[in-house]
Amino acid sequence: MQENNSVGIVAAQTAHFKKPLTLKSGAVLPQFDLVYETYGTLNADKSNAVLICHALSGTHHVAGKYSADDKHPGWWDNLIGPNKALDTNKFFVIGVNNLGGCHGSTGAASNNPATGKPWGSQFPVLTVEDWVASQALLADYLGITQLAAVVGGSLGGMQALQWTITYPERVRHALVIASAPNLTAQNMAFNEVARQAIITDPEFHGGDYYAHGVVPRRGLRIARMLGHITYLSDDAMGAKFGRKLKDGIHYSFDAEFEMESYLRYQGDKFAGEFDANTYLRMTRALDYYDPAAAFDNDLSLALKDVKAQFLVVSFTSDWRFSPARSREIVKALLDNELTVSYAEVTAAHGHDAFLMPDAHYHNILRTYLNNVQV
Amino acid sequence: MQENNSVGIVAAQTAHFKKPLTLKSGAVLPQFDLVYETYGTLNADKSNAVLICHALSGTHHVAGKYSADDKHPGWWDNLIGPNKALDTNKFFVIGVNNLGGCHGSTGAASNNPATGKPWGSQFPVLTVEDWVASQALLADYLGITQLAAVVGGSLGGMQALQWTITYPERVRHALVIASAPNLTAQNMAFNEVARQAIITDPEFHGGDYYAHGVVPRRGLRIARMLGHITYLSDDAMGAKFGRKLKDGIHYSFDAEFEMESYLRYQGDKFAGEFDANTYLRMTRALDYYDPAAAFDNDLSLALKDVKAQFLVVSFTSDWRFSPARSREIVKALLDNELTVSYAEVTAAHGHDAFLMPDAHYHNILRTYLNNVQV
Repeated sequence: MQENNSVGIVAAQTAHFKKPLTLKSGAVLPQFDLVYETYGTLNADKSNAVLICHALSGTHHVAGKYSADDKHPGWWDNLIGPNKALDTNKFFVIGVNNLGGCHGSTGAASNNPATGKPWGSQFPVLTVEDWVASQALLADYLGITQLAAVVGGSLGGMQALQWTITYPERVRHALVIASAPNLTAQNMAFNEVARQAIITDPEFHGGDYYAHGVVPRRGLRIARMLGHITYLSDDAMGAKFGRKLKDGIHYSFDAEFEMESYLRYQGDKFAGEFDANTYLRMTRALDYYDPAAAFDNDLSLALKDVKAQFLVVSFTSDWRFSPARSREIVKALLDNELTVSYAEVTAAHGHDAFLMPDAHYHNILRTYLNNVQV
Repeated sequence: MQENNSVGIVAAQTAHFKKPLTLKSGAVLPQFDLVYETYGTLNADKSNAVLICHALSGTHHVAGKYSADDKHPGWWDNLIGPNKALDTNKFFVIGVNNLGGCHGSTGAASNNPATGKPWGSQFPVLTVEDWVASQALLADYLGITQLAAVVGGSLGGMQALQWTITYPERVRHALVIASAPNLTAQNMAFNEVARQAIITDPEFHGGDYYAHGVVPRRGLRIARMLGHITYLSDDAMGAKFGRKLKDGIHYSFDAEFEMESYLRYQGDKFAGEFDANTYLRMTRALDYYDPAAAFDNDLSLALKDVKAQFLVVSFTSDWRFSPARSREIVKALLDNELTVSYAEVTAAHGHDAFLMPDAHYHNILRTYLNNVQV
């Protein structure tokens, strides 16, 4: 069957930035690459660009396939394409792998030009603000002065929000989905356990495992298994796996329950693909993000210069980025008399719901994006 | 200040069982010890005995101190003592370390009589039913035919429930606190991640680390850190730690947030004290417990022979053993026309609330226990 609403075969591109970038921490990256993809066509006045910000383990490969028989389209392919909710007939969509990532953008596994060896432990700790700054440089590189919209879920939503704070003149709409204005203590605690699993893996070598020809697979596997629990709701896990056994009870510590097989599979797969140093930095950026902190914890004050219009979306079963956290954002935006649409979507999938092709959810995005002027 | 309501200085005792015990798995323990403590006095007709069942990391040391300057009384000392909610002027209270434990009862670190070396990986996987069977042997040993009550929280509550199923004639009251008739998939998933952290620790050596003179500290530490998150509610963590930093942001993976220090401290402490093989077995017993499974998942049918009266207690902020799970137990008991009291206590502490000296909660237990005939 022909896929009429796919962006089709896509290819990643790389932008090289030769000018040093000073990060929020004060560390300086002497140079860096950002790998990105685009879908659709930039219009003549360059007013139809939409930036997609990814979450913890996302990439620049947001839509389309790398070959005709590619079984795994981009991670938000259900949303983005011709006539899809984010319509590439109208918009020019940009996906970018965040700085510090492990899919092509400069990260800890990249060579440090000062040593000619992988950065490893010396690669700086990044923040949401740093990502937004580097994404703005990518927009400059593409000749885009103002984005029609920045769209992100979870950690990606934090980037969308930060765009409106750092560059109020450069973004007309922000779509902040399944996100929060900062992490709760419980969320940070899960991140800490995941990081400690990685850091205490004997093959982590203080972050310089590249030099030892090993990777901290055990730690990364545990981190991912734990992550998967928190992306799903208790009900979703119950519906998907419940207490189902594979073939009875054997009084062992093998994977006897189907859920155990699922978690181990997800953990093994991730540990074979993802860079541990990236995982540490992504979770630390999540921990640190807190735009209200510099304003006596007053989020409304933190958003005082924002000019963008917003769509904020949350999901009822999301216990890591609960609707209450989205409502904090909405409240602070309204305090600043900004234009905000808010949708609280009834969904069983927990935090992962933002990636699912739920018709009601997608229609909300479609309707909002239809009204965005380009 | 004199503590008038403490059971005072206590000492553990050990009961040796020389008769082989066949476990639910079919494995046979040729002999075993149970370490226990008692508080109060067994009355003439031996009708005032109350058994306390412990949860995952509990012990037989439930109340009192081991010396006058002992800073750490038993784990439920706030509940048990003269004139306390569980009044040792009235009741003879028994605390026991579960079989497979690491505080004196026979476990994986004990010598296997067949080899003269620690059981290690060869120590059998245990079930709640096995614990109840071994506790019944301890009751026999103490000359107690019928318990006035069995009391337990969390995994301990499962044991209290199972007592009423296995030995309907031997228990008059069951106090099932912050418990559930089985684990949800999410709860089992947390157990699986904890076990995998232990099992994949290179110093686990397949469970036979005793022979190598090491312990899988890293894995046990991660397991405990994870456990701590789930024992507290999100709100409780927020109230206790929030996003408080120790001394600012340093762009590192050190413990910069107070919550991180707390989790690391708890993990380190536990890893230095607790046996990894015990942790594996305790969590597996939790996973397996499901009295309804043999009755086509009909809990009411599973409880058809029960005769005991019940007090079931849950806590509003307990997200691991939520009030809804306690209500399932209550419903099944009522289906069998049993006498049940149920209290849903408003509490901020999450699952840990069952260990806290909350006055309202303790008054519920006190009132119920005052009405227990001895």
